[in-house]
Order: sequence, then C-alpha cells, then structure tokens
Amino acid sequence: MQLRFLGTSAGMPTRTRHVSALALQAEGQRRWTLIDCGEGTQYQLMRTPLSLARLEAVLITHIHADHCYGLPGLLASASMAGRRAPLTLVGPPAVREYIEAMKATTGLFFDFELIHVEASTLVEAPLSLADVTVRATPLSHVVECYAYAFEERHIEASLDTALLMAEGIAPGLIWGQLQRGETAVDDHGRHLDGADYRLPSRTPRRLVVAGDNDTPDLLASICREADVLVHEATYTEAVIERQGTDHGHSSAARIAAFAEGAGLAGLILTHFSPRYASRPGGAYCIDEIEQEARAHFGATLMLAEDLAVFDLSRDHTLHQCE
Amino acid sequence: MQLRFLGTSAGMPTRTRHVSALALQAEGQRRWTLIDCGEGTQYQLMRTPLSLARLEAVLITHIHADHCYGLPGLLASASMAGRRAPLTLVGPPAVREYIEAMKATTGLFFDFELIHVEASTLVEAPLSLADVTVRATPLSHVVECYAYAFEERHIEASLDTALLMAEGIAPGLIWGQLQRGETAVDDHGRHLDGADYRLPSRTPRRLVVAGDNDTPDLLASICREADVLVHEATYTEAVIERQGTDHGHSSAARIAAFAEGAGLAGLILTHFSPRYASRPGGAYCIDEIEQEARAHFGATLMLAEDLAVFDLSRDHTLHQCE
Repeated sequence: MQLRFLGTSAGMPTRTRHVSALALQAEGQRRWTLIDCGEGTQYQLMRTPLSLARLEAVLITHIHADHCYGLPGLLASASMAGRRAPLTLVGPPAVREYIEAMKATTGLFFDFELIHVEASTLVEAPLSLADVTVRATPLSHVVECYAYAFEERHIEASLDTALLMAEGIAPGLIWGQLQRGETAVDDHGRHLDGADYRLPSRTPRRLVVAGDNDTPDLLASICREADVLVHEATYTEAVIERQGTDHGHSSAARIAAFAEGAGLAGLILTHFSPRYASRPGGAYCIDEIEQEARAHFGATLMLAEDLAVFDLSRDHTLHQCE
Repeated sequence: MQLRFLGTSAGMPTRTRHVSALALQAEGQRRWTLIDCGEGTQYQLMRTPLSLARLEAVLITHIHADHCYGLPGLLASASMAGRRAPLTLVGPPAVREYIEAMKATTGLFFDFELIHVEASTLVEAPLSLADVTVRATPLSHVVECYAYAFEERHIEASLDTALLMAEGIAPGLIWGQLQRGETAVDDHGRHLDGADYRLPSRTPRRLVVAGDNDTPDLLASICREADVLVHEATYTEAVIERQGTDHGHSSAARIAAFAEGAGLAGLILTHFSPRYASRPGGAYCIDEIEQEARAHFGATLMLAEDLAVFDLSRDHTLHQCE
C-alpha cells in the first residue's frame, strides 16, 4: 500500500511544500484514492504516474481552504480530460454545499456523477472501495473533521506447499484451485479440499490518515489495530507556547506520545506550519519537529515531503520509496 | 510597464503551463496588479519577486474556473502572511457572489477589506489605480466577460536642457523646479517659468488585456490608442473547423487579423488549448498558433509562456525580458 504525499504544508504553501493532499494506492493497481485536495493538487498529480481517470474516491477530512481548494479545479480537469466514470466524494456535509455553491456561482461543470457520502456514516458502517474498506472517526478541530482508517481487502491466501509436496501433489493448475479454496481432483483421482492446504492468512494492512486534530486520544479506538498513522504535526510545543494557542492542532510531541502509547509501528508526520524551513538557517527548522517527535516515539518515524512515497509492505513494515 | 505571465493555458493546466493569470507592474514600483487568478497563481508568485502585500488590485475577466479558482486561496494566504491593507477586486457580479459563497460554505477568511468594483462601471468611468487608469469593455464569451485597458498615469515631463544651457542656467535644484512646472528664480534674479522649459510630454503607454472572446471587433474602440493587446488564441482555425465550434474563443488567425487592422504595434497571444504542445512532436504544436498569427499580423508578435516577462518601454516598443 503506497502513500504518495502531494502537499505537506499547513495553511498556506511554501516554495517547497504544497498544501494538503495525499494519494493512497494498492500495489499493482492503477486506481487510487485521494485524501484531501488543497489548491494545486492537480499540478502535483502531473508530476506522478497517477491519472484522474483512475481516481476512485476523494475523501476530504474537513472544509478548510488548505484541504479542499483544489477540488473544484480537479473535478473540472478530470471532466475535460474525458472522465465519465462516477466519483465517490466523502466528507463532512459542508463539502457537498461547497461543490453546489461552486456550481451555482462559477458554473463549475463536470460530466460525471459525483457520489456524495457523508463522512459521519462511515463511523458505523465502513465504505468498501475496490482495494480497501474505509471507516471514519470524528476528530477535534475548529470545524467538523475526520480521520479515515483504511483496511486492506482481498488478502491473498498462501498455500502450504510443503504439505502439497509431501503428499506428492505436483505444482500445476491444481495448486491455483486449492489456493482459491476450491475442491480439486488430482492425477490419482483424489478429491482434495483447498481448505486443507491453505495457510492461515496474514492480517490485513491498516493505516489511519487523520485530518487536523488537537486531541490525539480521539484516535485511540481507530488506531487499535493500525500499522501506521499519518497525522499533522503543525507545531512544536515551543511555538504553541509562544503563540498561546494551538489553533486546533497537535504538536509533534503530543501526537508522537499518543502514537507511542498506542503501540503504532509507524508514524508519518505532515502538515507543517510554513514557519518551519526545510533546511536549517531560518528562525525555525523542520528538524525541530523531528527531534521533538523522536523524543516521544521509538518506532518508525517519517516526516513527509512533497512527492515523497512511502510503502506499507505486506510484512507491515513502513519504508520510504522515493 | 511590465507584464509577467503566471499562467498561459486554457481550461486546464499542462506540465509547462498553469491556467490564466497575468501580473502588471510599473517600472521601479513594488506595487502591482493581477489580471485573472487561475488555480495555482499563489504558487507561481513564489517564483517571482511579486509580494501579496504589495498587490493593489485584482481584475477578473470572467468567472470561469481557469480564470478565478486561485483567488480564494490567494486571499487566504495574503491574510495569513499579514496583509491588512484593503484590496480592490474588479470583475463581473458573479465574482462577488463566488467570494461570498466561499465564505459561507468553506469559512474563507481574510483579515482585510475587499473593495468590490463591478467591471461594468469601468466601461464609462475609468478606475484610477496608483500607476494606471483602467477602463473596461464587454466581450463576447459564454459568460459575462471583459477586456481591461490600462493607461499609464504620471507621465514625466522632460526638460529642454539645450535651451537651459543656452540661456546659461546651470544644472542644479532649479532644474527640478522647472521640470515640475514651477516658477523659479535663478542666480541672476531672473524669474523663470517651468512651462517655458518643458518639452512636449510623450504619450502615455496603453495596453489592453482581454478575457476570453470570440469577437475581436468588440475591441476596436478600446484598442484605438493602445500599443499592445494581450488576447487569447485558444485554437488554430483548423481545430475550430474540426471540432465544429470555437467554444466562445478566438483563433490565432482571427485575433491577428484584428490586431493588424487596428494598427497595433504589439500583440501577445496567450491562453492556449492544452492540445498544443510546447515542442514539436505531438499531434499539435504551439508553433502552429504562431505561424497562423504571423500570416495575418506584421508587427511585434509574442507568444506568452509561464513566467515570461514582457516590457512595454517608454518609447512604446515591446520586448521580452525573461
């Protein structure tokens, strides 16, 4: 499962970071899902292999400018490029009102169906996409905001090849039948049941992508079985203290401490205040975010950059690809 | 007077062209004016010396997506970056409705006054900005659309230095007084009138920036004294013929023929259909636009590219700077 960051800046862009957008794609698939769609997302997509024709769903965490102002242009461009397949759009009710207002005031046009799904409905009943199921959890921010939890579907079964060989069942079409759980007849006329030759399936990969949030503990339940959490770390503690408010956001320390307590194997931080420069030299540096988080989280910690790609492998380990 | 193109693609962006936006700036000034604001304009600005704090006015030609979807994000970012000075926003009434809808549905917030000016009022009464006056002319497009004509203000007077020297008036503070048209007393007690030493002022520079338009002749009046016209050339004639419609746009041939007939010294084409690739090799190439225009227009012809800068000099000649 690949996570491709399209924008990693909070509030406004910087020279090196677009505002929020993140693509999720199962390995070997061309279809993909977009989480948040800040202004300029369609420009970033042109720097990736992702196609608007293969976009299966857009999930908006909340209605703030830096998370949704790229959506109308993306819909218009997808239509102009020939997309006619329906598109699922998940988000708070404000997202639907926003799109309707854009149609009414600017003549926004797209020649495909937009299937609106209220994020709140995914709290109880997961949404099934082609490669993942999606659940939602409400967060605490200035406006209605959600985290989305993705669980891998279609876990492949593995065959107990040692047993097959021991019983003299040679590799062939029959192995495929048994792997699919079917009943098959071997060369000696034996009736074999696939269930007898399938090894216990691995656990599905699970990851949680959160919107803006000042109360990490709200993620406790949805993160219980997750491998990886993607969460904003807009500020360091020092900056929150200096400005006297967190503006509804988390610090690196707070989210890292939560992730440690939740036993997460991987944490990817994103959505950094523009004040944190990419390299040392300015008043603030992104290294401060990393240092603060590392002091509280011992497992795999990553800081997202624009166009960075992370892979959550079948063995549930997280690593950076690009 | 400098024209800096921030986006030059029609409808949707390409890998090399953002959607429409154009900055106008008088030489030696930091303040500037923005004409149209397609999605991603605030990203392009980070690649220029232009500052959102120094933006004096935004003029929107029409409400289509590729001309205005960068405006809400630009306003939000200007505010976050500390802008508190009022900003003039000129456009059709739909622009105001669009901004109000964005405030209502997405919580768009900016901590400065937006002074809305209906473009139609500039047809009769020019708007005075610091360095230019602006008039408007309605065009023919799918929606209400305008061209904006900019005329330079504050033409400097030049001194008849040969006459001053002949009369024995040496360079000094007195030259400045005379240049400003004041009366001055020289070393010999003579009372001198500035009017006697000022050379006829040059004519002001004038340029017209048009929105999308399928009827170039509508520009005849406003172009009468203009030096330069910036106009869309979305298609070549061959493409309009093939698709059976111009979608309310001009071809390179049509606008070039108009510019030739109007006696314009300079024509800058922009807003090219994404089908025209920047280099030969694709089905269509931008060279076709240029060749078609050159066949009809003999004076200075330029094709805009993203981040290209053109200067209209005091001698009314147009040349490309960057």
